[in-house]
Amino acid sequence: MIEISKVVVLGTGVLGSQIAFQTAWSGFSVTAYDINDTAIDQARLRLASLVKTYRKEVPGADAGQEAATLGRLSLSSDLATAVADADLVIEAVPEVIAIKRATYEKLAQLAPSKAVFATNSSTLLPSALKDFTGRPDRFLALHFANSIWKFNTAEVMGTSDTDPAVFDALIKFASDIGMVPIPIHKEKAGYVLNSLLVPLLNAAADLAAGGYAEPHDVDKVWRIATGAPMGPFQIYDIIGLNTPYNILLHGDAHAQQIAAWLKDSYIDKGKLGVASGEGFYSYPPAN
Amino acid sequence: MIEISKVVVLGTGVLGSQIAFQTAWSGFSVTAYDINDTAIDQARLRLASLVKTYRKEVPGADAGQEAATLGRLSLSSDLATAVADADLVIEAVPEVIAIKRATYEKLAQLAPSKAVFATNSSTLLPSALKDFTGRPDRFLALHFANSIWKFNTAEVMGTSDTDPAVFDALIKFASDIGMVPIPIHKEKAGYVLNSLLVPLLNAAADLAAGGYAEPHDVDKVWRIATGAPMGPFQIYDIIGLNTPYNILLHGDAHAQQIAAWLKDSYIDKGKLGVASGEGFYSYPPAN
Repeated sequence: MIEISKVVVLGTGVLGSQIAFQTAWSGFSVTAYDINDTAIDQARLRLASLVKTYRKEVPGADAGQEAATLGRLSLSSDLATAVADADLVIEAVPEVIAIKRATYEKLAQLAPSKAVFATNSSTLLPSALKDFTGRPDRFLALHFANSIWKFNTAEVMGTSDTDPAVFDALIKFASDIGMVPIPIHKEKAGYVLNSLLVPLLNAAADLAAGGYAEPHDVDKVWRIATGAPMGPFQIYDIIGLNTPYNILLHGDAHAQQIAAWLKDSYIDKGKLGVASGEGFYSYPPAN
Repeated sequence: MIEISKVVVLGTGVLGSQIAFQTAWSGFSVTAYDINDTAIDQARLRLASLVKTYRKEVPGADAGQEAATLGRLSLSSDLATAVADADLVIEAVPEVIAIKRATYEKLAQLAPSKAVFATNSSTLLPSALKDFTGRPDRFLALHFANSIWKFNTAEVMGTSDTDPAVFDALIKFASDIGMVPIPIHKEKAGYVLNSLLVPLLNAAADLAAGGYAEPHDVDKVWRIATGAPMGPFQIYDIIGLNTPYNILLHGDAHAQQIAAWLKDSYIDKGKLGVASGEGFYSYPPAN
């Protein structure tokens, strides 16, 4: 039986902070680790901002629960101390394999043998990392979405080496921290969400880049026919156009045509999506 | 200037009846044509049922508007009389090219030269039919979705022969009958909706048929991440599994694998979707 009570989150970027906060919010003892005092100071600001966000967006959030959450959450830049008694280490360090590798190689030495390691990586499969962990049977992917408190899926994906008991324990843990656990039975790049979203976004770009229909009309059809709140070009704007552009650039000749269209018609004009104030749609400034 | 006031709908099946009713509802004079008295009797039942549906689902529907609509709507099994003074003939006959061809060849003789012809075909491009119309410049596709009163898109798609003034007149007509007109600038099989939906549904089937994730989990991810009311397998159930199965059967080896999975796991067990009471989900009987 794998008991998880002490959780360490490595990396306090946008998602790492959210994972740490949501886990502490759900009653677990959490240590959020980052590499130095500057990063820890930024983490503190991120956590303070999450307190405000939860107050606004999470039903039932109040000062008591906020204080209790922060009481269960400590910050550390000392990896050895942070992981000394960890049951679960969730890794959310930058998506650079050299950084991930160095992190896991240190972790393999410092963490107790009982500790389960889980990567939040979006772009690397766990099998690309398992050999650095020293414990491939206690390693898997636990993949969260940004704005974890409302987009509360946790995709759980092991490798062929992952112990089924570890997989099951992480499904339960995901549920215990308020996520909807999504078991993925075999490794799949892009997990479930991107496996669905990428073909939809490509098909939409194809319609517009090919001159068949205007982005706003494509979105109208999708919204009316499926009842979805957003069409594919509204989703592009939220993701930001650079990410799909970079993926399409590395695709086949057809994908590269679509990439060229994105670049010429939008990216080169500074239309990058919501973050730049304009993409396929215009957005009013936030303030 | 193309003026549309007298509209004829050919074919009074599910969608033909809806097009005729919605057009009359919007104030146009409409003749709904079908091939014989039996078909006309069925059309009468369909129209009576639409009256009830509109009363329930269309805001502001009342007895007065219902009576006025039926007053503007006549039924006929005499093609020559039906189309004698038509401005617009919307063809919604069965999706069999021999039937469409015979219909257009008769129509070409019987309709006045001013009449615009529009096909509601989902599966045939207008260029496959234009040579039978005797007026390729006044012919295009006007494609409605089922449950026209709520899924109110009208995709307008011409061929290279379609007069731009005819295209524009149909965009205006679509708007005049309460549709959201979707101009499609070049012929595209599947129009906008199926060009988006098919890749999404294929990707979802791929995840489940490949053993990566369960249909219900795939749907959860999609609903939570995109805010859509339905995931791809809920959409499969509404469409019915036979249609995508038949399309996949004619695809490449990979598509055929997915087709085989649909057949073995669902279709052969009588799980055909909402209409059969079970598909990827179970549905309670309607009564």
